[in-house]
Amino acid sequence: MNMQNNSDHPLPLETLTALCKRRGFIFQTSEIYGGLNGFWDYGPLGTALKNNLRDAWWQDLVRTPPIGPDGEILDIVGLDSAIIQNPRVWEASGHVGGFNDPMCDCRESKSRYRADHLMVYVPADKDGTLFACLVGDEARAEKRIRKEAKADPAAYTVKPVTEIPVADLPRVWGPDAAKPGTLTEPRQFNLMFKTYIGAASGEDNLAYLRPETAQGIFTNYKNVLDTMRVKLPFGIAQVGKSFRNEVTPRNFIFRSREFEQMELEWFCHPDESQKWYDFWTEARLKWWESIGVSSANLRRRDHDPDELAHYSTACADVEYRYGFTAPDFGELEGIAHRGAFDLTQHQEFSGTKMEYFDQETNTRVLPHVIEPSSGLTRGVLVVLNEAYAEEFVPKGDQEGGPIQAAPGQQPPEGYEKRVVMRFSPRLAPVKAAIFPLLKNRPEIVAKAKELYMDLRTTWAVDYDQTGAIGRRYRRQDEIGTPFCITVDFDSLENNTVTIRERDSMKQTTLPITEVRAWLATHGL
Amino acid sequence: MNMQNNSDHPLPLETLTALCKRRGFIFQTSEIYGGLNGFWDYGPLGTALKNNLRDAWWQDLVRTPPIGPDGEILDIVGLDSAIIQNPRVWEASGHVGGFNDPMCDCRESKSRYRADHLMVYVPADKDGTLFACLVGDEARAEKRIRKEAKADPAAYTVKPVTEIPVADLPRVWGPDAAKPGTLTEPRQFNLMFKTYIGAASGEDNLAYLRPETAQGIFTNYKNVLDTMRVKLPFGIAQVGKSFRNEVTPRNFIFRSREFEQMELEWFCHPDESQKWYDFWTEARLKWWESIGVSSANLRRRDHDPDELAHYSTACADVEYRYGFTAPDFGELEGIAHRGAFDLTQHQEFSGTKMEYFDQETNTRVLPHVIEPSSGLTRGVLVVLNEAYAEEFVPKGDQEGGPIQAAPGQQPPEGYEKRVVMRFSPRLAPVKAAIFPLLKNRPEIVAKAKELYMDLRTTWAVDYDQTGAIGRRYRRQDEIGTPFCITVDFDSLENNTVTIRERDSMKQTTLPITEVRAWLATHGL
Repeated sequence: MNMQNNSDHPLPLETLTALCKRRGFIFQTSEIYGGLNGFWDYGPLGTALKNNLRDAWWQDLVRTPPIGPDGEILDIVGLDSAIIQNPRVWEASGHVGGFNDPMCDCRESKSRYRADHLMVYVPADKDGTLFACLVGDEARAEKRIRKEAKADPAAYTVKPVTEIPVADLPRVWGPDAAKPGTLTEPRQFNLMFKTYIGAASGEDNLAYLRPETAQGIFTNYKNVLDTMRVKLPFGIAQVGKSFRNEVTPRNFIFRSREFEQMELEWFCHPDESQKWYDFWTEARLKWWESIGVSSANLRRRDHDPDELAHYSTACADVEYRYGFTAPDFGELEGIAHRGAFDLTQHQEFSGTKMEYFDQETNTRVLPHVIEPSSGLTRGVLVVLNEAYAEEFVPKGDQEGGPIQAAPGQQPPEGYEKRVVMRFSPRLAPVKAAIFPLLKNRPEIVAKAKELYMDLRTTWAVDYDQTGAIGRRYRRQDEIGTPFCITVDFDSLENNTVTIRERDSMKQTTLPITEVRAWLATHGL
Repeated sequence: MNMQNNSDHPLPLETLTALCKRRGFIFQTSEIYGGLNGFWDYGPLGTALKNNLRDAWWQDLVRTPPIGPDGEILDIVGLDSAIIQNPRVWEASGHVGGFNDPMCDCRESKSRYRADHLMVYVPADKDGTLFACLVGDEARAEKRIRKEAKADPAAYTVKPVTEIPVADLPRVWGPDAAKPGTLTEPRQFNLMFKTYIGAASGEDNLAYLRPETAQGIFTNYKNVLDTMRVKLPFGIAQVGKSFRNEVTPRNFIFRSREFEQMELEWFCHPDESQKWYDFWTEARLKWWESIGVSSANLRRRDHDPDELAHYSTACADVEYRYGFTAPDFGELEGIAHRGAFDLTQHQEFSGTKMEYFDQETNTRVLPHVIEPSSGLTRGVLVVLNEAYAEEFVPKGDQEGGPIQAAPGQQPPEGYEKRVVMRFSPRLAPVKAAIFPLLKNRPEIVAKAKELYMDLRTTWAVDYDQTGAIGRRYRRQDEIGTPFCITVDFDSLENNTVTIRERDSMKQTTLPITEVRAWLATHGL
């Protein structure tokens, strides 16, 4: 059993966060100023990884979309809309009115809690103290009940905070307060960031940072119809930043306040929408597998009818078993059957007809929409989580391959631990590293640089001449470089190099002239 | 003389804006809600063009940077920092204190004017009315002087509004007002968009949308040093959105409130900074030429000493002759010698040491920075402006190539006008279009689709089977597709296709098996 993320050995988030910081994947934003909760900067390798995931999604959806359920070529075009849009967009979409989380504030500790995360222990005694706690923190609440109320927690009823009458709030003891009566009743809190255009900050100038990229697609649906000669069914795809004023950003880049989305809106005839919903739900799950996420850590979860929005007839999530959710799963992508809701809303609010005219049947129809929507930054977390592994390898990489390691186990004689990021070659930030065996041999260095200069015109490659070859392998393993190419004395004599594969550690010697072809047949 | 943008025939902005809307390059954001001043959405072709420009910059700077002045391989890494950062960043950078435009408001018309755009006609009569006008709108002011004051404008002195004493403001007649005395004195107006993190909107929660990507690089300079094994000199590059609350967004995407930047910060030893400044100034001008912008429409403009920021020893702009500035030039990219200003500021404000330790000389140094900074979206405008041409072509494209056209001239007998976007193949949104000669011949359609499905795995290609071939050429010309490939009866018999080149209209017949190689040798 390798130490890889799975139900038996969930990968601790701290391990991943530490690697990301140590190797230049992801940093807190403005770290030198103490950071900012919910905002992250992508370092050189994180930027490359994120760009590769973005480009893979774009290539596989916009440039070469999958073949449709009846063997047809699908038509999907790209789009890039503004982050700040006319505020009417968010009235039509429902985000101004409904994009709310009910929150409770604690006047004493200044903490804020999502109401659906707060549970309250209610005593039988109608004058007794009620103890609030965060879901998952029940042990602390029960300890407090024993200490403060000298009572048995089993005698208390547990209720969501939303079911506690306002009159009882003065008796509720907040999770982080030193006395009862400091919690406010749940209040709505809009998740859109506000800003003001122009110098004044009045309502006339109010605007929002988009909380999703999807609405920019709906507002351009007519423009695309009018300019791109598309016919139903067709798709519009967009990748870009979105912002949500999350009350409790958490789990690294899983839930942040600034994030990137990859969204596809698939417009189709209402009669065919169920077929397309089924198609996209399956296609999107397969896609995550195709870029190297193991099927064991992925699953489809169909929403229960009571989870659905009023306008939606079906919704499914692609879920991933994150280290911090294991053995359970957490959301990665949602595929929603949105019916005609969005186009109807924008038609009503803007007065612009959104109907599609079908020239063949001479009829008009308001298309239905299937929306596969995933987080690019959340996808990066999945790819990082999935790639991470620890194993034992022969010291100096002299012979043999990696062997399996159990957590806490020491490496056997002659072996050392390695951390390896098993990115698929397509996603790896660095595709290959070129090493001159010795940095003080000018002919070797020159030959290695020549190869580096040639390969970099096609692929993202690294050049490293510092330290023993074994240490250079470890550095590349840890950032997930699939191939290391060493130039040595044989290179000078025979014009050959040695390529070493990251996962198997297998080495192949071949002529320099064949390196490009070899890489191309190994996933690059 | 082709009708292309040059000093004799500047391309009207309206012509370009209309094409962009008609063919799906760029739309007003939220157009169905009346748009939003200063914000734009990129349609399918605009998104592709912008992505291609972004990728070309990234490829040529991060992946394969130019060779240095002494023949050395340069080291540049990528980064992607957050749009919302700790607000202390903007105190250190000077944007909170100094990022201001002085503005005049008109209390009557509610218009707002940049003070440096307002000129005032001052009469000799010390009780007479002063007439304000926008720079460029002098004719209207003079007409008003004749009408309202029954005076000769030549008898007035013209002064910037900032030189008018406050006591005289009640006598100043604003450009859009119906009476004098409505203009406020110039006031500072910070260009950063504000937002609030969390539910409250107090000063504690204030944050800004970044007005430039550069500061995210400086705040991560130490992180990059600590994780990426870089040595001086080295660069950090970033592409991303920035936001400026411009008072008067104008000239299409030239000055918008939400825009994209491509910025490189080049860190080097202070003793070498002048050498690197010279190097980058030249390299950046050359780069714009390399992607197809004619040298006739580009120039370098060195800033005068009195234009420089106090910390800067040199700054140069790469300027372009836009249709709306011609015969003059406007800014495209700035290359600034920023000295040690930014690192000094962040060192002071954050308390984090920013010195670089040079292991070879065992000395510490605060690097100097050379900053080539350009607008990606402004670059898109340049590429569009540069590509646009009108010319006469033989009807049906049967024989001969395009001939030159003068503005307003009618096409000669047998010719028609075409609009053609002469994008370089590297930047063209669509690289090639595949046409079956007839859409009702299944064998031809099948062969064309087969070619399309093959080519799309490598390039962005289009498939079009509607209308006469000549009309299909015109459509592709107008979006700048460099190559059109027709599958016809010969294709069925001899397995050949005909490739037609956009600019020369030259046609070449060749075996289908050679299409990929042909395209690769023609710039793809």
